[in-house]
Amino acid sequence: MIISIKLHATRAEIDAVCDRIREFGYKVHSIEGEERVVIGAVGVGDVTACLESLEAMPQVEKAVRISAPYKFVSREFRPGRSQIRANGVEIGGDEFVVMAGPCSVESEKQILDTADIVARHGAKFLRGGAFKPRTSPYDFQGMELEGLKLLRRAKERTGLGIITEVMSDGDVEMVAEYADILQIGARNMQNFALLKSLGKANRPVMLKRGLSSTVKELLMSAEYIVAHGNQNIILCERGIRTFETATRNTCDITSIAVLNELSHLPVILDPSHATGKRSLVPALSRAAVAIGADGLIVEVHPQPEKALSDGAQSLNPGQFASMMRELEPYVALWSKARTAEMAAV
Amino acid sequence: MIISIKLHATRAEIDAVCDRIREFGYKVHSIEGEERVVIGAVGVGDVTACLESLEAMPQVEKAVRISAPYKFVSREFRPGRSQIRANGVEIGGDEFVVMAGPCSVESEKQILDTADIVARHGAKFLRGGAFKPRTSPYDFQGMELEGLKLLRRAKERTGLGIITEVMSDGDVEMVAEYADILQIGARNMQNFALLKSLGKANRPVMLKRGLSSTVKELLMSAEYIVAHGNQNIILCERGIRTFETATRNTCDITSIAVLNELSHLPVILDPSHATGKRSLVPALSRAAVAIGADGLIVEVHPQPEKALSDGAQSLNPGQFASMMRELEPYVALWSKARTAEMAAV
Amino acid sequence: MIISIKLHATRAEIDAVCDRIREFGYKVHSIEGEERVVIGAVGVGDVTACLESLEAMPQVEKAVRISAPYKFVSREFRPGRSQIRANGVEIGGDEFVVMAGPCSVESEKQILDTADIVARHGAKFLRGGAFKPRTSPYDFQGMELEGLKLLRRAKERTGLGIITEVMSDGDVEMVAEYADILQIGARNMQNFALLKSLGKANRPVMLKRGLSSTVKELLMSAEYIVAHGNQNIILCERGIRTFETATRNTCDITSIAVLNELSHLPVILDPSHATGKRSLVPALSRAAVAIGADGLIVEVHPQPEKALSDGAQSLNPGQFASMMRELEPYVALWSKARTAEMAAV
Amino acid sequence: MIISIKLHATRAEIDAVCDRIREFGYKVHSIEGEERVVIGAVGVGDVTACLESLEAMPQVEKAVRISAPYKFVSREFRPGRSQIRANGVEIGGDEFVVMAGPCSVESEKQILDTADIVARHGAKFLRGGAFKPRTSPYDFQGMELEGLKLLRRAKERTGLGIITEVMSDGDVEMVAEYADILQIGARNMQNFALLKSLGKANRPVMLKRGLSSTVKELLMSAEYIVAHGNQNIILCERGIRTFETATRNTCDITSIAVLNELSHLPVILDPSHATGKRSLVPALSRAAVAIGADGLIVEVHPQPEKALSDGAQSLNPGQFASMMRELEPYVALWSKARTAEMAAV
Repeated sequence: MIISIKLHATRAEIDAVCDRIREFGYKVHSIEGEERVVIGAVGVGDVTACLESLEAMPQVEKAVRISAPYKFVSREFRPGRSQIRANGVEIGGDEFVVMAGPCSVESEKQILDTADIVARHGAKFLRGGAFKPRTSPYDFQGMELEGLKLLRRAKERTGLGIITEVMSDGDVEMVAEYADILQIGARNMQNFALLKSLGKANRPVMLKRGLSSTVKELLMSAEYIVAHGNQNIILCERGIRTFETATRNTCDITSIAVLNELSHLPVILDPSHATGKRSLVPALSRAAVAIGADGLIVEVHPQPEKALSDGAQSLNPGQFASMMRELEPYVALWSKARTAEMAAV
Repeated sequence: MIISIKLHATRAEIDAVCDRIREFGYKVHSIEGEERVVIGAVGVGDVTACLESLEAMPQVEKAVRISAPYKFVSREFRPGRSQIRANGVEIGGDEFVVMAGPCSVESEKQILDTADIVARHGAKFLRGGAFKPRTSPYDFQGMELEGLKLLRRAKERTGLGIITEVMSDGDVEMVAEYADILQIGARNMQNFALLKSLGKANRPVMLKRGLSSTVKELLMSAEYIVAHGNQNIILCERGIRTFETATRNTCDITSIAVLNELSHLPVILDPSHATGKRSLVPALSRAAVAIGADGLIVEVHPQPEKALSDGAQSLNPGQFASMMRELEPYVALWSKARTAEMAAV
Repeated sequence: MIISIKLHATRAEIDAVCDRIREFGYKVHSIEGEERVVIGAVGVGDVTACLESLEAMPQVEKAVRISAPYKFVSREFRPGRSQIRANGVEIGGDEFVVMAGPCSVESEKQILDTADIVARHGAKFLRGGAFKPRTSPYDFQGMELEGLKLLRRAKERTGLGIITEVMSDGDVEMVAEYADILQIGARNMQNFALLKSLGKANRPVMLKRGLSSTVKELLMSAEYIVAHGNQNIILCERGIRTFETATRNTCDITSIAVLNELSHLPVILDPSHATGKRSLVPALSRAAVAIGADGLIVEVHPQPEKALSDGAQSLNPGQFASMMRELEPYVALWSKARTAEMAAV
Repeated sequence: MIISIKLHATRAEIDAVCDRIREFGYKVHSIEGEERVVIGAVGVGDVTACLESLEAMPQVEKAVRISAPYKFVSREFRPGRSQIRANGVEIGGDEFVVMAGPCSVESEKQILDTADIVARHGAKFLRGGAFKPRTSPYDFQGMELEGLKLLRRAKERTGLGIITEVMSDGDVEMVAEYADILQIGARNMQNFALLKSLGKANRPVMLKRGLSSTVKELLMSAEYIVAHGNQNIILCERGIRTFETATRNTCDITSIAVLNELSHLPVILDPSHATGKRSLVPALSRAAVAIGADGLIVEVHPQPEKALSDGAQSLNPGQFASMMRELEPYVALWSKARTAEMAAV
């Protein structure tokens, strides 16, 4: 920690800060500048508690931690890349993985048709919500258990893995029975009760970045899950909220490269929520491949204009097929780079 | 709804839009401009589903709803102000209500001391977290049930009402046994499983605005609770996330006036989280009174520099006393205006 | 400066950083932590150049300055409050100063009528744009020199001081002939060519905070003007750009209290641009008085629905009169507090 | 325009709105809903003035324009892509164009060395600031005219085109003597005096998106330049300001695809300012090629750690060479797609 002291602090006030730091088990290094005193605290202790305590002292101007607040999810803890395995597919390895499907499971026909289509064009996982987080209480809230059963049927038919959202710690066990990957939505990224319960779940988790969450907070939420017992986490960029209204969200695509520097966990992009607009999805998907994402999760619906939710951002079957074809040469470049990287380690 | 059609759409494409609108039970009014066709849809139906469907049609440029997406929480539904009653105190009426206490319940002595102090200086509710939403899994997570019991003891001793946070739908019943008001934190404003369970709770709810939630979304989350059976809701502005880092959050103080125009629900301000800095709390509290908030929820700690969380933004006893004194003439102006308003209705 | 070194840096890499710091004339204090080395640089030198140089070294993780980047505008440089005098009125002293008038000067009748109205109800300055920054090239761009002459006529008639915007360094001299205070708009807060030319102007400057500028950047822009020769600066909060669309901008009202802690310069609020909506202006103006602003700049138009710009946020004469009356008891509390503060110094 | 009327408006109030609309030369189409009246205004007139006037009427809830506020820069006005030609190179055609060089011109040796390096590895333009917009008045402000002369020398030596920033309308003529492309920085995107003067300049303009400007506002600023006489505009995404601090700015990469839908103007990306961090530049540059940008503008410095500005985000010669090599296969895919698109028209 580095603690800067306010101008004109007295010697006694500075000493009180040093004493406080020592109480928390740190060694004190004091730097007396021309204008101001800055103190370095070195050692091992409860950083947060110490910082909180120091910041509450009126003579302290600022107290900043130097080490990262997360550990298990960091590249420093584990230098390579983690591979997460689900339904026989490896995410974070040498395969670029596409997950696709409707926003919501709406009917048997709709989900089976979609499963057929996305499987045929190269997806490895079927997405589809059974429990839907909707801004309005009057909107379609999902088919719940019935939806989960339909997802299972789609899996039996196509062999696709299933990724679906869980919204409450009370539902984790039930959803885990049907899902190969548990999806945590943006609005639940800091639902800590839910994060804790995922630690005990026997399933990989795909954790979406919150609408206004920083990259660091995303990693802290992943750290929650690891600290509670589950290391199998896939991160997902899905756009953040900014002042720009031309797109539903603002895709912070650079965060994928940042996460690759900071963490060993795989990162995928959701170009559907990041744009909110079907016509922009293929271009953004190309960019995701090029920047080094580990995969995509894309909304596809047999008839988007009949969708109960997210129709405007869902690709229809023809558009999905054409996008997958168009991505091929980019994925080839991706594979070449990834193979070289994994050989180099 | 107003639907604008893309330039160069064919007659058949426009007709398809009109047919779709009629399928949802609306009447169609078409406006043919110099350049572009705009369609008005009039009637009663499932607005969201219709909008989603229209937006998914490629010939549609934009589809916008005109009516507000919430109903029960709006001023149009209920023209006056709602009063919410808890532990014999009315929020939203002619009394400016202060809730105060530590971020977390830390020990019996700490919470009882704080209760004594805030009661003495005019607070009507004791705040204090037993379940703590913390960004890091390694930080203090609250005393849980033990903390709730200490809050009850503080209530027995001082008569203060208790407001405390509930973080999971599974805990609502337990927390409701101890709390007079259930607090929903900013990170859970769109935890829809939790919102639904609050509809069944037999306690008023204080709903904090999410870090990146709009005023409209805050009202939609309140609408969730009402739609599931509980009308007793207090809204709380606590600052939003912006690019500015001089304060912990950016207090959108105007939202209080906006909410007063749009809704009948009471609105209070949390100046502690809105600023993150103790020295700014009194000034912002004065502004909250002046703009017409119904109350404040303020962090107070007997020894902020020993607090396990939020020490930097907690007032010490002397500062709280002096702030309450300083607020008096502003509250007197507030009361005069409120009494006049209530008499006029 | 505090420089943290990346994990696993070699001794030679660390030494290279220390050497670089010394080249800029600073002394080096090295703190060797359990995991990481942190270096403090103490002394007087070209901080920015040194920071830039260090940040470009690959072994450096972060380099942070401790001292504020501004000097002349800081409270540390000048502990009290500055008073800025224009047309015989003091801003930043013991009088709460209201500036009012239309967005744009539109005609002789319009500006003279407005001047009469705002003078009658207590304004001390007449605002009105002759050069208008408009998002669209097709919108009304102002009456330019003709507008300035009409403002002078309004001053002759009412005695009000004139505040009007200057948009280009080439126009400063001309506008200064007619204006008592030169207004710099939000979009020009970092127009450095303009800021430099204001240093030479013989008129006080009102500097509006940029739409996405931090408080620190606002102070840096003020520092530009001072560094180029003009100390007479009034700061103005006018709302920042965020994701919230219920208001035209988000008023960061706390910034007024923050600026009062950091700087000796007066700060006023523009509630018209901060809200964009006439009905919210009086409530926000009360809050500005309560939080300790030095004044207001408010849009008033004899017939807002005929205004060529900003009609929706302009008060009509009756509304302005009623707001000024309503503010009176708040201004009385303000005066009492200010007088006490100035006596205490 | 679509105008929605407030609930409970009287017939007379609605009629007044209709009359006002007709005064501006529009025809009125009234839609009477169950709850609310909505009015469509059709025709040709001064949209902005009419909107402003309507929004100022208290019975109007919202007035929205349907047509885009820009014309000349839109795809609707000109369906294909514009090619901008400078120093014999075409931007927006079938060549992916790289502009590279230091943040600032610092010395003859520095700029000539950089020019040699970037020319050798495939750049077509040399960037380098002679006039520098710096947040602090105490930072290096550029070599000004001397810097422009050094840029000319670099051009004579290497044949590279020159792109350099102009910060004031008073300097446009001088800078245009030395520059092949005039760069407008993010902080000047809405410096309307400067935009107007560019209309008269005999040089293409590269217009950077403002830190908090929407895509629509960027297009409006381009429209300013066209409306004042200069059609040769290149747009540039360089990251926007958000709450995220892991990168210097947040690259809104999707805006490139959005701009390609809305406008015929070429769009390039500045990955250096978008990230602020050298290590992220190559990955983001790949994404820019993949999403369909027309080029890049990248900071390169012979010795970044000696740079007077932006060292941390500047590539050194080896890194630039390696990035250009790595981009080759992506540029090949880009060329194939672009050629196909241009053949199809």
